[in-house]
Amino acid sequence: MNIDSPKNRHVRVARALQTTKGRREHGLFLAEGPGAVAEALMYGRGIEWVAWCEGLADAEGDEIADAARRAHIPVHQLSDEAFRALSDTQSPQGIAAVMRIEPATLDAIHIADGGAVLVAHEIRDPGNLGAMIRSADALGAVGIVLAGQCADPYQPKVVRATTGSLFHLPVVEADWSQVKSWADDQRVSLYATALEGRHTIGKVGIPKRVAFIIGNEAHGLPESILQDATYSVRIPMSGRAESLNAAVAAGIALFEAERQKLAG
Amino acid sequence: MNIDSPKNRHVRVARALQTTKGRREHGLFLAEGPGAVAEALMYGRGIEWVAWCEGLADAEGDEIADAARRAHIPVHQLSDEAFRALSDTQSPQGIAAVMRIEPATLDAIHIADGGAVLVAHEIRDPGNLGAMIRSADALGAVGIVLAGQCADPYQPKVVRATTGSLFHLPVVEADWSQVKSWADDQRVSLYATALEGRHTIGKVGIPKRVAFIIGNEAHGLPESILQDATYSVRIPMSGRAESLNAAVAAGIALFEAERQKLAG
Repeated sequence: MNIDSPKNRHVRVARALQTTKGRREHGLFLAEGPGAVAEALMYGRGIEWVAWCEGLADAEGDEIADAARRAHIPVHQLSDEAFRALSDTQSPQGIAAVMRIEPATLDAIHIADGGAVLVAHEIRDPGNLGAMIRSADALGAVGIVLAGQCADPYQPKVVRATTGSLFHLPVVEADWSQVKSWADDQRVSLYATALEGRHTIGKVGIPKRVAFIIGNEAHGLPESILQDATYSVRIPMSGRAESLNAAVAAGIALFEAERQKLAG
Repeated sequence: MNIDSPKNRHVRVARALQTTKGRREHGLFLAEGPGAVAEALMYGRGIEWVAWCEGLADAEGDEIADAARRAHIPVHQLSDEAFRALSDTQSPQGIAAVMRIEPATLDAIHIADGGAVLVAHEIRDPGNLGAMIRSADALGAVGIVLAGQCADPYQPKVVRATTGSLFHLPVVEADWSQVKSWADDQRVSLYATALEGRHTIGKVGIPKRVAFIIGNEAHGLPESILQDATYSVRIPMSGRAESLNAAVAAGIALFEAERQKLAG
């Protein structure tokens, strides 16, 4: 289908996905840019259709549109004006996928044979949340759980910051009580990060099945979660800064789990 | 002095500091919010004056304004309207400091007795650069060097993301050739991070005097820098993601240096 007008029904739906309300109403989100769409094609399910704009896409974008056609996914060719209308970026790259939101549950996380999980609790900044999903993926975590009121993982800023990792591992939204029951059932140790944590990341042993819990950017973790956790742990900080960025802290915890695994 | 009008000369200068051009023209930058101003008072030099707005500041802001007065720094009381005019944020907190930009040189980094330095090469995202300065501070680095075309560390987004760390350690802008000569002179090992790095962070020993070099978000480090470096190192990644966020990678490298130091 060729779509010239920014007022076309498909374009209006895709544009609505920039807002939480629109995503909730349609049960869809938008993955934009060649990297994200390529990863969605390779790992994601639930692509409804792909928007492609010949005037804005480069050779990579054209190839991805071809790959989508071969996978029998509808590819609509948009005019520059129509594509710019649905895009969230200032310099659109002419390729985007409209995808169904298919929420995963804790059962989707396969930890029985060991692995690390990242639990993001009330992480509000989209850039932080995106970087945490990307780190969880890169550093071999078997899933990421968004507990409490986190940023919406399907908003464009988060999708972009994950650079495709959103499609690589289970991203689960759950209440803390569900996380706690799941951890008890699956015999997963809960390592809660806190500035005053009792054990030191880098010194404390990390078990085969572990979940690292990272708290809100401003307030950290609530006392109730620190009580529920197996251990409270802190990252050793010898400088003057009070704390680390939440995404950096998550990356360090996951790296340490990997490092201990490599060290045998 | 009481300033009611947003058109007041002082307010216009402070407002101009939101842009690179304005900062360059005046040689000044703005540190906004109670946290940043408190850190500036404690560690920073070169505070020209403090803007305080009774209607917008909370008790903490009022205390900081008092502390500035006790330190004989001019505190101007602004009307809500005037303060909002100079503020970079949507919900201004009624306290800000206008500060002189006092560029540090590599000589300001004291590494003779050992320490880690972070070299950020062509880091373009203000949030990443701010998080890197914060991590360098938290994880005990003795300085951070911005090499090549990095984001301007004195822009409001970076100043905010450093949460005061901008005032805690030398932040040096330098060319790569200067960094290389300095490292040779000071016998500092250059560890360049790369996806295809030969040695693995977490396995390779980290010397007493080390600089970790982190490359651009999209392109990594140029071949010439990898050639100049003592080692190329990679962070072990067992997942599907191609790479880590630059600030997360920097945090992991600095953490590993700290961990080895703690392990003796």
